[in-house]
Amino acid sequence: MAEAKANKRVNDDLVEALRGIVGDRLSTTDAVLGHHGRDETYHTPHPPDVVVFPEATEEVSRIVSLCAEREIPVIPFGTGTSLEGHVAALNGGVCIDLTRMNEVIRVNAEDMDVTVQAGVTRKQLNKHLRDTGLFFPVDPGADASLGGMTATRASGTTTVRYGAMRENVLALTVVLADGRIIKTSRRARKSAAGYDLTRLFVGSEGTLGVITEVTLRLYGIPEAISAAICPFPDLASAVNTSIRTIQMGVGVARIELMDEVQMEAINKHSNLDYPLQPTLLFEFHGSEAGVVEQAETVQAIAAEFDASEFRWETKTEDRNRLWQARHDAYYACMALRPGAKGFSTDVCVPISRLTECIIETRRDIDETGLMAPIVGHVGDGNFHVIVVMDFENADEVARAKAFNERLVTRALAMDGTCTGEHGIGHGKIEFLTAEHGEAVSVMRALKMAIDPMNIMNPGKIVRL
Amino acid sequence: MAEAKANKRVNDDLVEALRGIVGDRLSTTDAVLGHHGRDETYHTPHPPDVVVFPEATEEVSRIVSLCAEREIPVIPFGTGTSLEGHVAALNGGVCIDLTRMNEVIRVNAEDMDVTVQAGVTRKQLNKHLRDTGLFFPVDPGADASLGGMTATRASGTTTVRYGAMRENVLALTVVLADGRIIKTSRRARKSAAGYDLTRLFVGSEGTLGVITEVTLRLYGIPEAISAAICPFPDLASAVNTSIRTIQMGVGVARIELMDEVQMEAINKHSNLDYPLQPTLLFEFHGSEAGVVEQAETVQAIAAEFDASEFRWETKTEDRNRLWQARHDAYYACMALRPGAKGFSTDVCVPISRLTECIIETRRDIDETGLMAPIVGHVGDGNFHVIVVMDFENADEVARAKAFNERLVTRALAMDGTCTGEHGIGHGKIEFLTAEHGEAVSVMRALKMAIDPMNIMNPGKIVRL
Repeated sequence: MAEAKANKRVNDDLVEALRGIVGDRLSTTDAVLGHHGRDETYHTPHPPDVVVFPEATEEVSRIVSLCAEREIPVIPFGTGTSLEGHVAALNGGVCIDLTRMNEVIRVNAEDMDVTVQAGVTRKQLNKHLRDTGLFFPVDPGADASLGGMTATRASGTTTVRYGAMRENVLALTVVLADGRIIKTSRRARKSAAGYDLTRLFVGSEGTLGVITEVTLRLYGIPEAISAAICPFPDLASAVNTSIRTIQMGVGVARIELMDEVQMEAINKHSNLDYPLQPTLLFEFHGSEAGVVEQAETVQAIAAEFDASEFRWETKTEDRNRLWQARHDAYYACMALRPGAKGFSTDVCVPISRLTECIIETRRDIDETGLMAPIVGHVGDGNFHVIVVMDFENADEVARAKAFNERLVTRALAMDGTCTGEHGIGHGKIEFLTAEHGEAVSVMRALKMAIDPMNIMNPGKIVRL
Repeated sequence: MAEAKANKRVNDDLVEALRGIVGDRLSTTDAVLGHHGRDETYHTPHPPDVVVFPEATEEVSRIVSLCAEREIPVIPFGTGTSLEGHVAALNGGVCIDLTRMNEVIRVNAEDMDVTVQAGVTRKQLNKHLRDTGLFFPVDPGADASLGGMTATRASGTTTVRYGAMRENVLALTVVLADGRIIKTSRRARKSAAGYDLTRLFVGSEGTLGVITEVTLRLYGIPEAISAAICPFPDLASAVNTSIRTIQMGVGVARIELMDEVQMEAINKHSNLDYPLQPTLLFEFHGSEAGVVEQAETVQAIAAEFDASEFRWETKTEDRNRLWQARHDAYYACMALRPGAKGFSTDVCVPISRLTECIIETRRDIDETGLMAPIVGHVGDGNFHVIVVMDFENADEVARAKAFNERLVTRALAMDGTCTGEHGIGHGKIEFLTAEHGEAVSVMRALKMAIDPMNIMNPGKIVRL
């Protein structure tokens, strides 16, 4: 597929000026540009014209100022693991790769918060925290950067208990479209002081500014953790068990669904022998007694819905293997069909509609004849269909896209959203309008107010 | 004090046009105008020119359209219990009183959410929910409207466990400054679809639009609830107990501080006989076993900090009396000095700094010679000093204002906020700049983008 044309305003002069800021931490080689213009999906790559690797907020500010003077697009880049074309340089421009901004600036153990540079990844942070008794819970599949997770309003398997990035970002340092640096908030746990700029930038996908530092909530590592894997005779029983668990107010830390196709994929990929049935994976956090109490309640609910067994993973290494397998679900799907690429859907619906939504979707997949495992954060009403497909096959592409449109339409009709956690990028711009209607005009007004020249990751979330 | 001059553009013609929308649900009598231009504090009253009482979003839309055509200010009004001059019609205009929009539109028990019209109060909602096993936890002192609580980003005594309005609003219906109606979100528990308009309007204090409907999260009434009252030998011991409790990750539902002055006030006001010492009030929610476990942990912490006793309030009526007394703290303070008015501060700091902040503040109060009890949501790092004073006494006013400025400066130096839950209104506009610096320019840009004519509650949060 054709790559976007380079931005003609990015000339030797600009590259020299950028070099004046970052020295050798700059690249214009095809390999580096190519790497920065694509994500993990089928979206057409759009490489930037130049990639810079700043090490400080001040450098980012100078880079953005330079781009603002020349009206050059700026595309922030974390780990490139987003899924809706977020990093595509649709009109060329300067990619700001934040991976060298990977310092944990300050752990405030007493306040249970931490400030990091945007390039720190979630695994790096948790490794850094390992002697503090604290951890950061939000865990998308990839080992994404915390800046990227903030920018896409990411969530993960623990959101049902600990919330998403929306709930866990306390404050941000942001470089605005004209190079000014702001802090969106202070470290107090709550504030009623003015518009909630923190939440405005959480989920803004680089379109309003470059997030350079993030202050996050941390949590105490629970005294006790236990996990269980629980296969069901059919999808409806598994989903209904998760709905009932939420409605009973059991504070499960994780409640994840995999359908039988997904179980087969992870068995193969991770060399496991779990039953090939729709399965729920649970994790319980709390005191020793609290964890037992939660697990007993859930086990009783599962039994009502004819769960085949409730297999405990008590050893830390078994538990880790279980969740690693879950996090590798996407890659496991890819391995089902060598050479294929993935197309992940991301709808989220009110939990009362979840069973209906998943059952109809499974039927739709089967009728469409796609290879498409289902995996879901069912405690939040969010699930992914990972369509494993050949993007060179026009018929398959057409069928997959039509399937996704039907799925989004189904979720919207149930008062749900087209994206629970992946974001809009440019891949879901049409769906944003279907979902928000007139409210998109307010989003457009916000974008124009904060980035009047439309240089910040242009073409994402809203088109001007 | 002088009242603001009426807006000359509000003429008979406009009143007639408004009557065409709301019929007799409109008033221009002095008593009604006066009531709508003042809040519960010392702020100078600024009555609007006319008050309308719409019953539907569609009516609000038509009212705002009419005002937009004529560039007339629009001031939304809930119960008038805000504390920073939020409802003052600084330039006159049309006050939209939402109290007749008091319908609970839909309880989604299975999804644990509810949609209400903005005028429904928190107590009305909980009364409505009483047979569902669900409740809405956010509880500012007053029985405020849920629209007003959303607009001020309110919180309360249960925020430490259940979060503030920020965490508990799922979606809003908003009438924009030109009369258009938008929905900010759907009912899914999470979404990554575009800018977070919901959080933008939560805390916007009527300056970006009129909130007419609110969708809120609900929670299951816990299986077990217990409360305790725990006096300490000194303030530091009480505050340190609360800090340790939070740091240990005990999921207390409430942890509230009252200093000895406040205890005396509530004893008198509510005819109670609690010890006149700095005191923590606790509430625990959970399973029978879970509540016992939490309470034992907290009791052990309190003992370490020399708590005098740990007095259980096991009966529902004793517990209700306890929390009613807590909610009446402000009124109890007023009763300390007949004819006096209250001036409530509202700083919130990172919890590691809370003891230092409260101790310094108590010393400051004593040195200043003010009558000023302290009451606080100490689990969040938020506390109020309620200065009980005579606003006709210029010296007392000067001392109180100077005290508040020192308190805010102290909190900001500790990375805290000038307002944890009361908002900015026009009373704290100067502090907003001290707190947010350059970021206020972004707030101003947002305001101008969404309300370009500056008709929505002008003069609040930011001045244009």
